[in-house]
Amino acid sequence: MSLTVKLHITNQLNLNLGQTSIINKTKFYTPRIRTKPIYHSNPLISTTSYNNKPITTMHVPSYSSSIKSSLIDPDGGALVDLVVPERERAKKKLEAEALPPVRLTKIDVEWVHVISEGWASPLRGFMRESEYLQSLHFNCLRTESGSLVNMSLPMVLAIDDDTKTRIGSSPNVGLVGPNGDLVGILRSIEIYKHNKEERIARTWGTTTPGLPYVEEVITPAGNWLVGGDLEVLNPIKYNDGLDHYRLSPQQLRKEFDRRQADAVFAFQLRNPVHNGHALLMNDTRKRLLEMGYKNPILLLHPLGGFTKADDVPLDVRMEQHSKVLEDGILDPETTIVAIFPSPMHYAGPTEVQWHAKARINAGANFYIVGRDPAGMGHPTEKRDLYDPDHGKKVLSMAPGLEKLNILPFRVAAYDTVEKKMAFFEPSRAKDFLFISGTKMRTYARTGENPPDGFMCPAGWNVLVKYYESLQAEEALQQQAVLTS
Amino acid sequence: MSLTVKLHITNQLNLNLGQTSIINKTKFYTPRIRTKPIYHSNPLISTTSYNNKPITTMHVPSYSSSIKSSLIDPDGGALVDLVVPERERAKKKLEAEALPPVRLTKIDVEWVHVISEGWASPLRGFMRESEYLQSLHFNCLRTESGSLVNMSLPMVLAIDDDTKTRIGSSPNVGLVGPNGDLVGILRSIEIYKHNKEERIARTWGTTTPGLPYVEEVITPAGNWLVGGDLEVLNPIKYNDGLDHYRLSPQQLRKEFDRRQADAVFAFQLRNPVHNGHALLMNDTRKRLLEMGYKNPILLLHPLGGFTKADDVPLDVRMEQHSKVLEDGILDPETTIVAIFPSPMHYAGPTEVQWHAKARINAGANFYIVGRDPAGMGHPTEKRDLYDPDHGKKVLSMAPGLEKLNILPFRVAAYDTVEKKMAFFEPSRAKDFLFISGTKMRTYARTGENPPDGFMCPAGWNVLVKYYESLQAEEALQQQAVLTS
Repeated sequence: MSLTVKLHITNQLNLNLGQTSIINKTKFYTPRIRTKPIYHSNPLISTTSYNNKPITTMHVPSYSSSIKSSLIDPDGGALVDLVVPERERAKKKLEAEALPPVRLTKIDVEWVHVISEGWASPLRGFMRESEYLQSLHFNCLRTESGSLVNMSLPMVLAIDDDTKTRIGSSPNVGLVGPNGDLVGILRSIEIYKHNKEERIARTWGTTTPGLPYVEEVITPAGNWLVGGDLEVLNPIKYNDGLDHYRLSPQQLRKEFDRRQADAVFAFQLRNPVHNGHALLMNDTRKRLLEMGYKNPILLLHPLGGFTKADDVPLDVRMEQHSKVLEDGILDPETTIVAIFPSPMHYAGPTEVQWHAKARINAGANFYIVGRDPAGMGHPTEKRDLYDPDHGKKVLSMAPGLEKLNILPFRVAAYDTVEKKMAFFEPSRAKDFLFISGTKMRTYARTGENPPDGFMCPAGWNVLVKYYESLQAEEALQQQAVLTS
Repeated sequence: MSLTVKLHITNQLNLNLGQTSIINKTKFYTPRIRTKPIYHSNPLISTTSYNNKPITTMHVPSYSSSIKSSLIDPDGGALVDLVVPERERAKKKLEAEALPPVRLTKIDVEWVHVISEGWASPLRGFMRESEYLQSLHFNCLRTESGSLVNMSLPMVLAIDDDTKTRIGSSPNVGLVGPNGDLVGILRSIEIYKHNKEERIARTWGTTTPGLPYVEEVITPAGNWLVGGDLEVLNPIKYNDGLDHYRLSPQQLRKEFDRRQADAVFAFQLRNPVHNGHALLMNDTRKRLLEMGYKNPILLLHPLGGFTKADDVPLDVRMEQHSKVLEDGILDPETTIVAIFPSPMHYAGPTEVQWHAKARINAGANFYIVGRDPAGMGHPTEKRDLYDPDHGKKVLSMAPGLEKLNILPFRVAAYDTVEKKMAFFEPSRAKDFLFISGTKMRTYARTGENPPDGFMCPAGWNVLVKYYESLQAEEALQQQAVLTS
């Protein structure tokens, strides 16, 4: 149980919060029908009272009590763990071998990983139709108690007509990995139609061609979905030298306890860490300390599943993140770097809910959200696919995320006067240089150095080397084409 | 307050419920994560217990208490009424005249009508962005108390660039009807982007060309939305000879009280009433009586706003409905016929939630839902746009509709053996003839009679006359083209 202490809103507090504004969405602070929109660059400034009570509350630690074993409850009350205990594996494997097989793609296995470790708690398997429809229409699921948990992405397993025929009326199926290895069992299955057009439209808010997850996963998939209760025969491993970074929600919670964290703030990313990111993470920690927390821990949590072709690959990113910690840009004592195993949808406001929800299950009670989270450029028009502000707005209003503290932040940019990354100040806009992911990659690819202070040199070097290797590879391929 | 009595599930009860199955979604019966899907042709049959308590409950009247003045509370607790009191109208009209004007289309006025009478309670005007985003992403809105009310359709007012410029920084605007008449005021406005692609994709689950509401309303609309608090200078009237059918939620609630209804079951339709509809409405009443209700009242509630070009027009439908009551196919003593003023989206599972939610506000505590509610054929593919079962499934799981009793029904068809409309029996499928809306219209247009017992003769005659007049009109138009 976490303690809730009401803070009176004073100028002092507003001052303290500065760039990072903190929304605690308890029952006293929830989006609701009123004249003003419920989100602001600093929501505390415009917070009004409700029934003469201050409507903003803040979780602050109680120092009279001992450190809590859990800062935030997992959705549904208990973490889901679907890995078969070791003593039962041989028996279950025999059973699985005798079941109609369903072949998994690489990305299906990533979802098996996600679901089996409880990131999507209380979900216990690939979605049946009732869960799929709730996710698609309401971005949340009703639990047994009647309460809602957030669930914005359909986590579904597609099968084709032949597989459906082969399953027949079998209540259970065996899940077979891309290399033919038995991965698990799906029990009490339900097969239902995979209306791809509707799934895409409701998840992405567009059906435009060129959405990476759609092209990679949905378009080639079968016309049926199979839901059921998942059992995984062995913990999912990738043997890519990065498995030690893949901490499960259970492992993360233990580590937070071991470090006696009294606040955990999660930072989701799929790009290299530049000094603007670091500024904001360090600033957040500072502000949490000012609020009275004694030991706020940063969960630096790069996404490790499917990403689009022009994103920087996971191994390069992990190396880059290491350098950032080695260089002291982030403090290793108060930072945990781990991989979030989910594939990326690039579904903007819909997906950012999943990113936040999964971090609740991992034990984070603060979630940092920036401009255009989980967004990308429109595949066919010259604009962002999503309104860059919609992500944090939708996140702050999402059913089932009330217990999470959302930390929206202003955009950081390169301050050409101060020669460092700093929070953008509209009053002297001309002094700031925006370096987008695309621009950063162009710098690294062309060998051009970004301005001093954009990224620590060792981290930058990792990127330069990656793009050099990419170019060498491309040159080799071109040569091979020319000589063949 | 309504009384809740737990019913134990017995074969007797299953038998009684027969074709019409009744879901009462109290906190004991809510969609939740479990092995079985939560919907069934008869949900009571598969209902299981939770913590050894029966999880299905049913509202039954208490005869020791007096008739309730309200069978079901409006969403948000109180009916919204945005019509300016008569004594203030002259003053407000003067004020409105001085405000920047926003020109309304015919369909905008239908929404003004809907919102001003409280069908969308607790919504108090066209949506601001926070409401729009909640509606689009979650199909529900958070109220001040923290609870959720259903709100599946964005109720928004679009303006173009010129209008936006003209409004400037004015906090209020005047609303001007299609004929230049002042309709009302929108206060404390907020202007935000109208991303049509996203709105369409998330509302319809498709962006396919040919969606009637999209083509009629959204495509020609401006690229901005303006939300705010609505005030309407005069009750909306159409002067089409049908205004006496346009009862507001407040008027309907009064009428239910006057008739001492102890249950109100609403039937939404946009087509002529055939004997299959009548069978099911009469059957529902019978079953409610068997359950112990003394005076269940049917709200026969045709939709009166925008419909697509090939639907039967409202005046013809109202005349046809009158004949059905005159012929005694439905009992006038226990039926109220009124017009539901909303425009039609044809957005299937998303829209049926709105249809149900609006009837809560009108005082109905039971809602009948059939196959493919608010659906239509896919505009470019040879299939239904929506899975015909999704409407009732989504409805039964929708946040904010927990207090409404959903009555799903099996499809009725023409029984060629019994020579009447009857509930379809799969065991003798070959005896049944399905007469779709399209087929019915073809019969009427070609002058062919439908099978005996499909519709009462006087009602059928209304349709025949309508299509004859349509053909006469078309012939005249063709002649005019040929002679010009």
